[in-house]
Amino acid sequence: MKQFMDKDFLLKTETAKKLYHEYAAKMPILDYHCHINPMEIYEDKHYSSITEVWLGGDHYKWRGMRSCGVPEKYITGDADPREKFQKWAECLPSLIGNPMYHWTHLELQRYFGIEEPLNGGNAMEIYDKCNAVLAQPDMGVRGIIRKSGVKLICTTDDPVDDLHAHALLRDDPTVPAVVLPAFRPDKAMRADKETFPAYVAQLEQVVGYPINTVADMRKALADRIAYFADMGCCVSDHALDYCFCELADEETLNDIFARAKAGQKITWQEQLAYHTNLLIAVGQEYYKRDWVMQLHFGCLRDNSKKLFRQLGPDTGFDSMNDVSNAAGLAALLNVLEEKEALGKTVLYSLNPVDNGVIGSVMGAFQTNSPIAGRVQQGAAWWFNDHKQGMEEQMRSLMNLGAFGSFNGMLTDSRSFLSYTRHEYFRRILCNMLGEMVEEGEFPQDWKVLGSLVENISYNNTLRYFGFDKFVK
Amino acid sequence: MKQFMDKDFLLKTETAKKLYHEYAAKMPILDYHCHINPMEIYEDKHYSSITEVWLGGDHYKWRGMRSCGVPEKYITGDADPREKFQKWAECLPSLIGNPMYHWTHLELQRYFGIEEPLNGGNAMEIYDKCNAVLAQPDMGVRGIIRKSGVKLICTTDDPVDDLHAHALLRDDPTVPAVVLPAFRPDKAMRADKETFPAYVAQLEQVVGYPINTVADMRKALADRIAYFADMGCCVSDHALDYCFCELADEETLNDIFARAKAGQKITWQEQLAYHTNLLIAVGQEYYKRDWVMQLHFGCLRDNSKKLFRQLGPDTGFDSMNDVSNAAGLAALLNVLEEKEALGKTVLYSLNPVDNGVIGSVMGAFQTNSPIAGRVQQGAAWWFNDHKQGMEEQMRSLMNLGAFGSFNGMLTDSRSFLSYTRHEYFRRILCNMLGEMVEEGEFPQDWKVLGSLVENISYNNTLRYFGFDKFVK
Amino acid sequence: MKQFMDKDFLLKTETAKKLYHEYAAKMPILDYHCHINPMEIYEDKHYSSITEVWLGGDHYKWRGMRSCGVPEKYITGDADPREKFQKWAECLPSLIGNPMYHWTHLELQRYFGIEEPLNGGNAMEIYDKCNAVLAQPDMGVRGIIRKSGVKLICTTDDPVDDLHAHALLRDDPTVPAVVLPAFRPDKAMRADKETFPAYVAQLEQVVGYPINTVADMRKALADRIAYFADMGCCVSDHALDYCFCELADEETLNDIFARAKAGQKITWQEQLAYHTNLLIAVGQEYYKRDWVMQLHFGCLRDNSKKLFRQLGPDTGFDSMNDVSNAAGLAALLNVLEEKEALGKTVLYSLNPVDNGVIGSVMGAFQTNSPIAGRVQQGAAWWFNDHKQGMEEQMRSLMNLGAFGSFNGMLTDSRSFLSYTRHEYFRRILCNMLGEMVEEGEFPQDWKVLGSLVENISYNNTLRYFGFDKFVK
Repeated sequence: MKQFMDKDFLLKTETAKKLYHEYAAKMPILDYHCHINPMEIYEDKHYSSITEVWLGGDHYKWRGMRSCGVPEKYITGDADPREKFQKWAECLPSLIGNPMYHWTHLELQRYFGIEEPLNGGNAMEIYDKCNAVLAQPDMGVRGIIRKSGVKLICTTDDPVDDLHAHALLRDDPTVPAVVLPAFRPDKAMRADKETFPAYVAQLEQVVGYPINTVADMRKALADRIAYFADMGCCVSDHALDYCFCELADEETLNDIFARAKAGQKITWQEQLAYHTNLLIAVGQEYYKRDWVMQLHFGCLRDNSKKLFRQLGPDTGFDSMNDVSNAAGLAALLNVLEEKEALGKTVLYSLNPVDNGVIGSVMGAFQTNSPIAGRVQQGAAWWFNDHKQGMEEQMRSLMNLGAFGSFNGMLTDSRSFLSYTRHEYFRRILCNMLGEMVEEGEFPQDWKVLGSLVENISYNNTLRYFGFDKFVK
Repeated sequence: MKQFMDKDFLLKTETAKKLYHEYAAKMPILDYHCHINPMEIYEDKHYSSITEVWLGGDHYKWRGMRSCGVPEKYITGDADPREKFQKWAECLPSLIGNPMYHWTHLELQRYFGIEEPLNGGNAMEIYDKCNAVLAQPDMGVRGIIRKSGVKLICTTDDPVDDLHAHALLRDDPTVPAVVLPAFRPDKAMRADKETFPAYVAQLEQVVGYPINTVADMRKALADRIAYFADMGCCVSDHALDYCFCELADEETLNDIFARAKAGQKITWQEQLAYHTNLLIAVGQEYYKRDWVMQLHFGCLRDNSKKLFRQLGPDTGFDSMNDVSNAAGLAALLNVLEEKEALGKTVLYSLNPVDNGVIGSVMGAFQTNSPIAGRVQQGAAWWFNDHKQGMEEQMRSLMNLGAFGSFNGMLTDSRSFLSYTRHEYFRRILCNMLGEMVEEGEFPQDWKVLGSLVENISYNNTLRYFGFDKFVK
Repeated sequence: MKQFMDKDFLLKTETAKKLYHEYAAKMPILDYHCHINPMEIYEDKHYSSITEVWLGGDHYKWRGMRSCGVPEKYITGDADPREKFQKWAECLPSLIGNPMYHWTHLELQRYFGIEEPLNGGNAMEIYDKCNAVLAQPDMGVRGIIRKSGVKLICTTDDPVDDLHAHALLRDDPTVPAVVLPAFRPDKAMRADKETFPAYVAQLEQVVGYPINTVADMRKALADRIAYFADMGCCVSDHALDYCFCELADEETLNDIFARAKAGQKITWQEQLAYHTNLLIAVGQEYYKRDWVMQLHFGCLRDNSKKLFRQLGPDTGFDSMNDVSNAAGLAALLNVLEEKEALGKTVLYSLNPVDNGVIGSVMGAFQTNSPIAGRVQQGAAWWFNDHKQGMEEQMRSLMNLGAFGSFNGMLTDSRSFLSYTRHEYFRRILCNMLGEMVEEGEFPQDWKVLGSLVENISYNNTLRYFGFDKFVK
């Protein structure tokens, strides 16, 4: 029997152990997609308590607590940080098998030197220990990044953002990692939302000219893409409920845009047409600049309207969607290819059921790619960010494509302690490869295996995103 | 190599064995959802033969036999019970890997003391042995319930039912288990069915007033809910082809109802609107009484029209459905939450593809729940009621929520010998936990693990359904 | 640790090894569905190089190379065969976990006696070795068939085909296997395609009368079915994007047909109506002749329009589809059953998500079948033709039906070296059974287990398709 989360955690075979300890563990981290606040890096934010780091903004943990019957007071409410931590600790045994159980203990082990399982009984003792560690000068955000071996971070930024924090970070030679913006123009794309007119007004202000037509909007986004590019951005991101490709003529699109800008209701079909047009337009801009286009789909957001009104978006009320994606995704990629503008594209679905669709559709759009794996399936995302989800995503990639060109992990995180998710991923990766080798399904060729592990842990991402321009 | 279905059947690790034998096996059974006839308990029915118990009404076995090429004569036809049993026994080797293979042998072992694998060769010998056992006085329905450690049973009952059998059972102190009705108003909800007008007439008779509007129907159902509540009912059940939430105004609904009652055809859209309205209405009634609302969806029924005409419903001609559920389910739960009437709800889909949707949607509706896990995913159901199905459902629950609050197993059965399915489930549960522990993924903390096993086997259900009012 | 792909490749238990080596390995092959050219058998084609065999027409490998970033020049372009082979070899480490990795090495081992893993370093050496083997007189197509133990092959043929090659093969006593045509009338069914008018004209020529109505088309297909039957055909095949059953009256159908024949655009709904009508019509013809009807669905074809224009269909640009199938499939089978014409039917979906739907729908249509398993789920197909896909398909069959009547494997291949896929399948089959036995889930009864393995490897197919008329 293995000890609880010891050094060979998740590593079942000798081959897996060697691959992890001698190859994977040594590679630095490129965290190309997350939701952290860059200003906290610039200011080297220090946390007042483990409650602030863990429960201040992590809607994964909030959901976990709600599922255990914890009242909202102890989650997003005004309870004392000690009480909140106590409640979280009490939930842990019930979260058996949930990735949060492992993340929690990986973070306790790696950042706080705490090896014992957290639970209601030892919560206050561990709370104090963690806070003592957090009070150390090297446990600010920058210290955590340094300790974690992070070389580069991409944040998630709106086109209207002036990227002030990124400018400060760029000009500060003491920052321990490259920090780049990522372009996420969802708000410009959702003409069906009540907030659209206000957003257009904001974008008009930023670009300095009126946006009255779809052509104006395309220009505005292109201008912001140029601005982001100047700030080192080389990756974009899009959230889609599901994949679609609804073509419409310019006149129709202008009519849709005009009504939406005026605050009138548009149909879902009209929204899809408008959205498709802009996706193709920004896709062409990305292609010109060799940016990576990320598409995150399969998500149904803000399901509890009551809690959305209370807490806003991204607070734990989203779910998987289960609408057909294959035809829409294939059509969208095809339009881009027809326009000679299909560039580096990373596909993520929130519903693991789509693994096969993604793997088989992307295989149809790799012809004459300048890089191995132009169209990629992204790492297991959000509700799939656990052992089974990662194994299924990687197994699907192996079955359907060339696993060797996989870009590997990102945190998608809202906390600076989440870098251990890279460790979690790498252990699972090495374990899968180790099992194949020990079952005689792949030769025990350390050179090949070591390269695979190093590439998927680090090198592929470095090359694919063009981060080698920034990271020495 | 393990012996065939020995005492450690399905238990691969020492931790699993200890968890099963020292914790799970000792817990009684709460069978909160099944399709047995309560009068058979009252009358302490004795079976004339193992053919009657096994093949008299079990459409799982019927399907198995049909898939092996057995003529209908030996399934639902007029063949001799000996011949039918012989045919069933001959099918068994071909049913390798099917849960019926294991259920059959668990029942032979536990109730009949027969350890050898059943097949065509020993069928007649085993037939006679079983019948000799069934002839014993303590092998009536009550004896089986007692031997099985069943503390409580919920049957499945129509709103028009007078619950006569339940009244008799309630007043009989010698009944070995609490037997409660469950409220299943599907017939009142399906205005698109040919049988709807006759059903409304029947319901009018029962409530004693005419049902001419949707408001009348809502009142009639509320009255029947009150009646069921008086008889101890605390759980309802609904069958949906898929999840939907189609809102309509009262006038439209009355028009739909009037036409349907008059035997006219309504559209599917109209049916969904009517159905949604009633679901919300009864949901509010359930909430008032702290009842549990079960939603069973993802089923396509009576696919073979020919055999439906010959044998009626629930005879082995249903299948999984594969229509999108996420948006409809989220919208329905949201409407109930907006009405401050989202109560205890258990979600089951017949298509295992929906595990992720259920797990992620339900996580959005747990806020300020009075109990851990207000919205639950039910145990693997029907076509998923096997080792893989249970493992996938539990794995999904672990990944997406708080496994510790899971309600565990029910039989959904039409036979009194099916209680061994609880054993089957508990072995699989303990095996999963044992494997996690021995792989170092969870601490070997017997107190925590023992509680988890006991809770999921029994205590969670006791608390969640409020059965502690009935079971001492 | 097991050696790389040794004699016990994929066989984890002693039971699995015995089942494979003593039962499965000894059975001949019936390859009832493939895409090889029968004339190459008649002419005993010899290959000029391993590049020709492997990369001449195998779009699986083409996709693999594109996913590794290989330029099209080295795939379908005019690069030298040596260079193409070198590129393929360089891709292999990156294809870790892909079934092509194992197929490649199985073929190198079984046909060329090469045991070492192929990679960029030894590519040219292996290239020369393979070509030397291919130059031997017994390494023509016939020799390969003989060595592979293939008893019978079904090709895939269009109704307009005169089956000239099949006639030659039938009359040549030296052919090492029975070679039969299979009837695949997709082109007659796709009235929405631009090529439809030309195809109708071609069919008119072949049958010798004008085809002006749907009745004419039904007659023409029935005539071709009769012709194919005379040539020994006993199996048909249909490609559907997804399952549907869109009924329409004859007048509507004639109008659709007339417009389509005149080269006018028809709607997708109209196409479905026309397609449904013909599927039912040919289904009735198949039933009369006791043919097997194969339905392949869940495929989205020619996703890259650019590459489709360059290379045509079946060149690596298809994907899984993800549209609902349950209702359409159930309705289609029901119509055939209602017409007393539901015969032997094999269902394949390209999306593994459909396993449960297929398994549960088919279970509803087995009543009074003249053979065990009238409606079958076909072996894991195309994008699922790997260890995980096969295991999932077989596990699903076990869970939902009678695994003992499963027909087992086919190659679906375009290469004569692909017969090792039967070996791959049988190893996986034996491994699954072995694991069940050693875990105590099934008795170690060699007679039963041996029969299961022999039946699923060979006997079931022989009986189900009626090949016992042809193979002694």
